[in-house]
Amino acid sequence: MRMVDLIEKKREGHELTKAEIQFIIDGYTKGDIPDYQISAILMAVYFNDMTDQERAHLTMAMVESGDTIDLSAIHGIKVDKHSTGGVGDTTTLVLAPLVAALDIPVAKMSGRGLGHTGGTIDKLESIDGFHVEISTNDFIEYVNRDKMAVIGQTGNLTPADKKLYALRDVTATVNAIPLIASSIMSKKIAAGSDAIVLDVKTGAGAFMKTIEEAEQLARAMVKIGQEVGRQTMAVISDMSQPLGYAIGNALEMKEAIDTLRGEGPEDLTELSLLLGSQMVVLAKKADTLEEARGMLQEVIDNGKALEKFKVFIKNQGGDPSIVDQPEKLPEATYKIDVPAKQSGYISKIVADEMGVASMLLGAGRATKEDDIDLAVGIVLKAKIGDEVKEGETLVTIHSNQENVDDVIGKIYDCISFADAVESPKLVHKVITE
Amino acid sequence: MRMVDLIEKKREGHELTKAEIQFIIDGYTKGDIPDYQISAILMAVYFNDMTDQERAHLTMAMVESGDTIDLSAIHGIKVDKHSTGGVGDTTTLVLAPLVAALDIPVAKMSGRGLGHTGGTIDKLESIDGFHVEISTNDFIEYVNRDKMAVIGQTGNLTPADKKLYALRDVTATVNAIPLIASSIMSKKIAAGSDAIVLDVKTGAGAFMKTIEEAEQLARAMVKIGQEVGRQTMAVISDMSQPLGYAIGNALEMKEAIDTLRGEGPEDLTELSLLLGSQMVVLAKKADTLEEARGMLQEVIDNGKALEKFKVFIKNQGGDPSIVDQPEKLPEATYKIDVPAKQSGYISKIVADEMGVASMLLGAGRATKEDDIDLAVGIVLKAKIGDEVKEGETLVTIHSNQENVDDVIGKIYDCISFADAVESPKLVHKVITE
Repeated sequence: MRMVDLIEKKREGHELTKAEIQFIIDGYTKGDIPDYQISAILMAVYFNDMTDQERAHLTMAMVESGDTIDLSAIHGIKVDKHSTGGVGDTTTLVLAPLVAALDIPVAKMSGRGLGHTGGTIDKLESIDGFHVEISTNDFIEYVNRDKMAVIGQTGNLTPADKKLYALRDVTATVNAIPLIASSIMSKKIAAGSDAIVLDVKTGAGAFMKTIEEAEQLARAMVKIGQEVGRQTMAVISDMSQPLGYAIGNALEMKEAIDTLRGEGPEDLTELSLLLGSQMVVLAKKADTLEEARGMLQEVIDNGKALEKFKVFIKNQGGDPSIVDQPEKLPEATYKIDVPAKQSGYISKIVADEMGVASMLLGAGRATKEDDIDLAVGIVLKAKIGDEVKEGETLVTIHSNQENVDDVIGKIYDCISFADAVESPKLVHKVITE
Repeated sequence: MRMVDLIEKKREGHELTKAEIQFIIDGYTKGDIPDYQISAILMAVYFNDMTDQERAHLTMAMVESGDTIDLSAIHGIKVDKHSTGGVGDTTTLVLAPLVAALDIPVAKMSGRGLGHTGGTIDKLESIDGFHVEISTNDFIEYVNRDKMAVIGQTGNLTPADKKLYALRDVTATVNAIPLIASSIMSKKIAAGSDAIVLDVKTGAGAFMKTIEEAEQLARAMVKIGQEVGRQTMAVISDMSQPLGYAIGNALEMKEAIDTLRGEGPEDLTELSLLLGSQMVVLAKKADTLEEARGMLQEVIDNGKALEKFKVFIKNQGGDPSIVDQPEKLPEATYKIDVPAKQSGYISKIVADEMGVASMLLGAGRATKEDDIDLAVGIVLKAKIGDEVKEGETLVTIHSNQENVDDVIGKIYDCISFADAVESPKLVHKVITE
């Protein structure tokens, strides 16, 4: 097999076989196939797409390029959730205890990652003493006993995906559905999930700017899941404005606790119930999404979800009292209210720019080496469609630096007003097959 | 300027500016832009093509990537000819003395190259004593005085094209009209030509398999010539069978001499007159192709073309008596006639496979280091459309090895018979603008 012939085959729009795709991914991972041949075929894929079969083969070839996590010692169907990434997205922290309270095992491997705020681990680390450096044995024991644990990234998962992603980033081949879909799915499968729930974000704060693109990606991933024998469902949710009110690590932790108590923001609660319902159905604990939703609402109402969260925190060295006393979470020195300059209805809160503003405060990382300030961030006081009067607080900045003029300027830039506005639809589509 | 943005721009089908194309070619030549970004944009060009303007900018950027030959000391309009490559193509050896005999300067830089037979230099070196290692001063003096000289490749011409070609070869991006056209044109322009005549081959023995593809390429090159101020014309000629009868270095030299004497094969003579006419018109020695053709026929008939060839050979150390005594050219030890196994009309002589057969005899080079046997080759005794009786000689093999069974097998494989066949059209199109 010669790589140049495979490039030509894809260039001519023909379907690559499983063996050919394995040859490419295996050769690239080992360094036998050079970057310049891979970037050529990636561009050919950009133009000629991949069939469902090719996408499935690509996904599994990437899974097989490295280690995979064996969760077979954990009883029950392991359902993982993945979000394509947004601003102020705290659903993982809400969902995990929520479904664990229904005896569904949540065996979460998580990374720190880059972004507007930290990753799930950073948010959890805002709890004094909490850590994810636990042994695999403890991890499995916690999940079997208490249905929930989070461990830091271990092993060399999907090295092919890492190499491919770095190359795509510099060759203008990031934005291709088959490549995005197989990249995400390979990571989830390598991490050991039996079933997968996807939250595909759309809007200004998301990678997929339009609903059509988001739906294409969602359907591509659900299809890959089917092809490779992993039940997969997806929700297409709005990221034209941040989710919930809080942006920042400890701030989002507090919001997650509120939501588990049944007192969280409407949109975060709704999305958590929707994604949670899919997880419950995929875990075969309910037959319908409606039934699942009822069960989830019940563990919020009767306090079991919150109780589950406490046990989880305690298992991993954290102080569970923060659940009832969230003031124990790290707090920023300065709380600066930013007043509305005019009266009207909020028509726009550009999500990604709000994320950038919170990064300016130190809530996120631009490079892996960056320090992160868990206390800082932004709390919205109103969202799109809300009426605000001149002088009322639009957002509160939580900062450890006194001068936040640049952040305030940015915030004013991303919030717009109009005379009348409808709230944006939170969920555009639910894709179950 | 960031390369990734330029890849994306081309991927989205937008036109790159002159500065952007210069940035790419300059950066690639210097090694600032890596192969993997170039192969991505080459594939994007494959799918999205380039405008006439882009092709012209690309051509000139490649010309400017290295040295250019200054032929300004040579009087008159320097017209160069380029063939896209075929089997048994001896036109350069015929054309050069032919137009030089009309006082048109032929300042030819030539390489050895790879292929079924050697390049023009190899063929010329079948003349005892002849060499192309002459000084630039002598080169210019010979051309000014006698209108014809051939020098070996000097200087670092179009390094960008060399790098790009090597990359295209392994990334399935060879076969893209804008890239082929700019590659050829950049080399001709860097070599100092004022005007260019192109012989674009089509058929089994050529790179462009169909007339449509060949015409696309021809028009692309003529257009680039116009855009960059070099008058360019093209002929699309048949390469479904070898040109002339001889394949092999000394054998082709002899055929070229026959043709200059007016006794050459019909197709080689016709193509030489056609291409020569374009050269004469571009050199402004005639107003029309018809007038030019008459002038060329005259220098064949009155012996001036042959005389010019002798002077040229003598200038460069060769023995001009071979022109009248071609038996002084290297001769192979064995001459093996291959008889027809059946009677009928020849319907096919697969040109590229005949070339491979002559390479098996040692007439060509597979790698730059290979030795070449100037004496060996194949001489056809009949061409497509000719009637042959069983037992009559189809071809004569000129070999320095006694056992040529593999060559004979190959030859039988590429010659087919039918009950009635028309000769193929030699020239499909003449493109003058």
